[in-house]
Amino acid sequence: MNKRLVIALGGNALGNSPEEQLKLVEGTASTIVDLVEEGYDVVIGHGNGPQVGMVNLAFQFSAKNGGGTPRIPFPECGAMTQGYIGYHLQQAVGRELVRRGINKPCITLVTQVVVDNNDPAFEHPTKPVGMFYSKEEAEAIMATTDYTFVEDAGRGWRRVVPSPAPVKIVELPVVEHLVDAHAVIITVGGGGIPVIENKPGDYTGVAAVIDKDRASARLALDLKADMLVILTAVEKVSINFGKPDQRDLDTMTVSEAKEYIKQGHFAPGSMLPKIESCIRYVERSKGSKALITSLEKAREALQGRTGTVITID
Amino acid sequence: MNKRLVIALGGNALGNSPEEQLKLVEGTASTIVDLVEEGYDVVIGHGNGPQVGMVNLAFQFSAKNGGGTPRIPFPECGAMTQGYIGYHLQQAVGRELVRRGINKPCITLVTQVVVDNNDPAFEHPTKPVGMFYSKEEAEAIMATTDYTFVEDAGRGWRRVVPSPAPVKIVELPVVEHLVDAHAVIITVGGGGIPVIENKPGDYTGVAAVIDKDRASARLALDLKADMLVILTAVEKVSINFGKPDQRDLDTMTVSEAKEYIKQGHFAPGSMLPKIESCIRYVERSKGSKALITSLEKAREALQGRTGTVITID
Repeated sequence: MNKRLVIALGGNALGNSPEEQLKLVEGTASTIVDLVEEGYDVVIGHGNGPQVGMVNLAFQFSAKNGGGTPRIPFPECGAMTQGYIGYHLQQAVGRELVRRGINKPCITLVTQVVVDNNDPAFEHPTKPVGMFYSKEEAEAIMATTDYTFVEDAGRGWRRVVPSPAPVKIVELPVVEHLVDAHAVIITVGGGGIPVIENKPGDYTGVAAVIDKDRASARLALDLKADMLVILTAVEKVSINFGKPDQRDLDTMTVSEAKEYIKQGHFAPGSMLPKIESCIRYVERSKGSKALITSLEKAREALQGRTGTVITID
Repeated sequence: MNKRLVIALGGNALGNSPEEQLKLVEGTASTIVDLVEEGYDVVIGHGNGPQVGMVNLAFQFSAKNGGGTPRIPFPECGAMTQGYIGYHLQQAVGRELVRRGINKPCITLVTQVVVDNNDPAFEHPTKPVGMFYSKEEAEAIMATTDYTFVEDAGRGWRRVVPSPAPVKIVELPVVEHLVDAHAVIITVGGGGIPVIENKPGDYTGVAAVIDKDRASARLALDLKADMLVILTAVEKVSINFGKPDQRDLDTMTVSEAKEYIKQGHFAPGSMLPKIESCIRYVERSKGSKALITSLEKAREALQGRTGTVITID
């Protein structure tokens, strides 16, 4: 049996428009196929912040201004982005697999992820989606809608929606079946389409965004993956990030990570949820490791030559 | 081994807005699970005319009028509808399977379908997509865009895009693998995302719509299905449809069907492509049957009690 990797792809692996995304997925696909070549069965989770914001915004704008199209609820917007992103990713990964003579398919599964109706997150929307606005623009939109905007890690103002915890991946048995067949699988896109379980097997969509790192950690746990790999814009996790005494970390135990969180080293909405997902995964998986590195350095990091590895104490 | 059915779902199985679609898929799911209960492995193709028109229109409207979102090419719009429709369908079918105590998953695969760059269809756009307009509205839009509109089977004016023939289903090996595992599979949504094959394994999206009945017939052939079932708004195919001497058909041989086509009995863009897909499937599958009936009568028709069966002579 091959070792199983669950990869969480960040926004830098995709893009803000179809043209940009088509270009960026080329590099993303190259990295993913690198890891397949290293002998891993690879399962891919990805974010959809900018994309679901784009879909949501276009439909809201059209409905509001006489475009003649209906409003699309948030979970349906998420489902659309799974098709849109999955199409580009599976096309690019499939091309790269064939180019390197690897006979494996790459496919996208439309994926629902159950959240708890009583999750306290529904009282406190925190997940940034869509485009960045200036403070003035954000305040103008808040004045005429029920949206909540917050300042996002120094990058501007963004709409926030609730971000409940992923409880269960509805399509997990099929993901499992296809991993066993060595397919490269794109799933829990955008963290998964968030649904409430009314009774066993009976799901209803809900307006929320599940953090993609958290959903990928859930996936890695459920698949008993050998490693959770979070690919982002930096090669290593740093403490004192952006300061003169910045220190890049090769490894970090769960206890150290918790201590760094307490000291406020990781930005909310950016590095913090990644670290928290790694902690959750490493603690519950009993000995599996988590790795945070950049898309470009993923292969080197898998070979133990860079990146930040998070382990149990 | 169970018998394999490929079902092509028409627009009446879905809907023109998220709310409508969520309601309609309940009945659709009930029919699909009826067929699963009859002992078939069911693979589902579906249309996306109104849905891809809606996505395309919202993004065009937003981009044109200052919504701040990018234009989305037609194949990407199709990919979005696969996520959107697949989510609703798999949720409803999954719920109904659990309700009846059937332990099978229902999943959606994002699916690319190869078309030939030299297909003459690219010279002559014929496939209606999106909403119906009055003649005056259509002429006003044509005057300011490069769209082509035509009168559609007496129901109004609609935009047309090229409708090339489906040559190959890219994700077929995975569909096959999952049929063998008795999953209920939603694939070739909207006829599939149309792509050109630049070289083996290297695909690029193209602005077109593949007829969903034709893509479903291709799928049925490739899967060596036992029957192609086209579900539409009528219980049986009729000749002299809507006239005093209308005659509903129980069966039709390929020769008879071709003769009826010559006599102009079937409306282009409506019943004609369904009959043509059935002919193509029955001729090439060497003995398999095709069935056209309504969603409501599907189970009865599978039991041989209604519907129109198309057979080889």
